[in-house]
Amino acid sequence: MSVAPRRIGVLGGMGPEATVLLMSRVIAATPATDDADHLPLMVDMNPQIPSRIARLIEGRGEDPGPVLAAMAAGLQQSGAQALAMPCNTAHHYAPVIRDAVTIPLLDMVEMAVAQAAQQVGQGGLVGILGSPALQQVGIFDRALARHGCEAVYAADQDALLSAIRGIKQGGPSVAARDALADAARDIAAKGASLQLVACTEFSLIADAAADHARIIDTLDVLVQAMLDFAR
Amino acid sequence: MSVAPRRIGVLGGMGPEATVLLMSRVIAATPATDDADHLPLMVDMNPQIPSRIARLIEGRGEDPGPVLAAMAAGLQQSGAQALAMPCNTAHHYAPVIRDAVTIPLLDMVEMAVAQAAQQVGQGGLVGILGSPALQQVGIFDRALARHGCEAVYAADQDALLSAIRGIKQGGPSVAARDALADAARDIAAKGASLQLVACTEFSLIADAAADHARIIDTLDVLVQAMLDFAR
Repeated sequence: MSVAPRRIGVLGGMGPEATVLLMSRVIAATPATDDADHLPLMVDMNPQIPSRIARLIEGRGEDPGPVLAAMAAGLQQSGAQALAMPCNTAHHYAPVIRDAVTIPLLDMVEMAVAQAAQQVGQGGLVGILGSPALQQVGIFDRALARHGCEAVYAADQDALLSAIRGIKQGGPSVAARDALADAARDIAAKGASLQLVACTEFSLIADAAADHARIIDTLDVLVQAMLDFAR
Repeated sequence: MSVAPRRIGVLGGMGPEATVLLMSRVIAATPATDDADHLPLMVDMNPQIPSRIARLIEGRGEDPGPVLAAMAAGLQQSGAQALAMPCNTAHHYAPVIRDAVTIPLLDMVEMAVAQAAQQVGQGGLVGILGSPALQQVGIFDRALARHGCEAVYAADQDALLSAIRGIKQGGPSVAARDALADAARDIAAKGASLQLVACTEFSLIADAAADHARIIDTLDVLVQAMLDFAR
C-alpha cells in the first residue's frame, strides 16, 4: 500500500446489526495481508437516533434529521473524508446530512438505483424490497424516475414491516425469510425481475429473495463505493 | 429504558475483525426489543495504528503509544464517557492512554485478571493464551502478581504468533485452531487449569481451547464491563 487509505465516517446504529454487517463486509471485501491494509473508519453507532419508521410511517416522534446532521458534522470533525449510512430509509434525510458537511455522502440509494437502471434500461421495472417507509416517502421512485425507470413494491407491506421489526428484535428468522421470499415472488409476478434489497435488515437474509429474482443488495453497492473512495 | 445509556469510545482496528467481534458481542449481550435499547458507541476503527507486535517483539517501527493517545483524546472529544480497547497486547499502552483523557479506560487486562484471580485464589496459576508480546512485556504477569497469582505460558510461542498472523490474514483456520488447542494442552500440563483467551484473534476460535482448560475470554469480560458501564 503506497498511500494511506482515506477515512470514511459511518452514520450507524440503524440498526446496530446493519452497521456491524457493513463493517464485516468492508473487511471481507478488502484485499489485506495485515491490519494496516484495512480501511480506517469512524463509526458513530447511535441506536438512539429517533425512529425513522415511527416518524415517516406513523407520523409521530422526534425528527431524526437534526440528529443525523449533528452526527455527520461530528464525523467530519473527527477526520472523516466521506460519509456512509447503512440504512436505506434514512437516506430520506440525505439532503439535511449534505447541508451539514462539506464532505461527500456516498449515497447508497442513488448508487444502487444507477446500477439497477443500467441493467434494466430505459422504462425498466425495478423491485424494492424494504420498509414501507421507502414507498411512502418515494425516495427510490424519484431516484429511478431520473433514470426513466419505475419502482415496483410488494402488495403486503405489513408483512415486510413485521419482518424488519422481528429482525431488529430477535435477529434473522424463518418467518422473516418467508416474508422476504413472498415479497420477491409477488414483485417478480408484477414484471420486475431485478430487485433491490433495500433494507439493511434484509441484507442479513438477502439469499431468501434470490430464488425469485436477480438481486442487487444496496449494502454491497455501498461497500464497493467505500472501497473505491478509500483508495 | 428510563435513562439514556452512556456512550463508550472504542479504540479499534487491532485488528478490524476483533473490533467487529466486540461490537457483535455487545449487541448480542444487550437485552433489546428495538434499536434504541442498544449501546451507543463511537468506534475509531484505525487499522493503521503502528504494529504492536513489530514494536514490542521485533523492536522496530513507530511507537503506537502517541497514536493511541490521540485516538483516546479524539473519542473523549466526540462524547465518549469511557474507553474500551479490544486488543490485549495494546493494553501495554494503557498508561499513555489514561494520561491523554479524563474518562476511564475499561481495562480488559486488569478486569480479566481480577476475575481469574478470584477463581484460582492466592498462589494460583493462570494460563495466558495470546501473542508472544504479552509474555515479553509482562502485563499479565504484573497484573496477576498484584493478586498473588502467576502467569503460565505455552512453550511454543512461535506457533501462537503464526496463528495470530494467519487469522489476521485469512480468518480462522484449522491450523490456528490446532495451535491454540496445543497451547492450551501444554499450559494445562504445567498446572494451569484456568486460562485466559488473551488475544482478540483467539476470541474468534476460543472454543478450540475449551477442551483442555476452563476458559475466560478477556473479550467477554470487556463486553460485560461495557454493558455495566453504559447503564
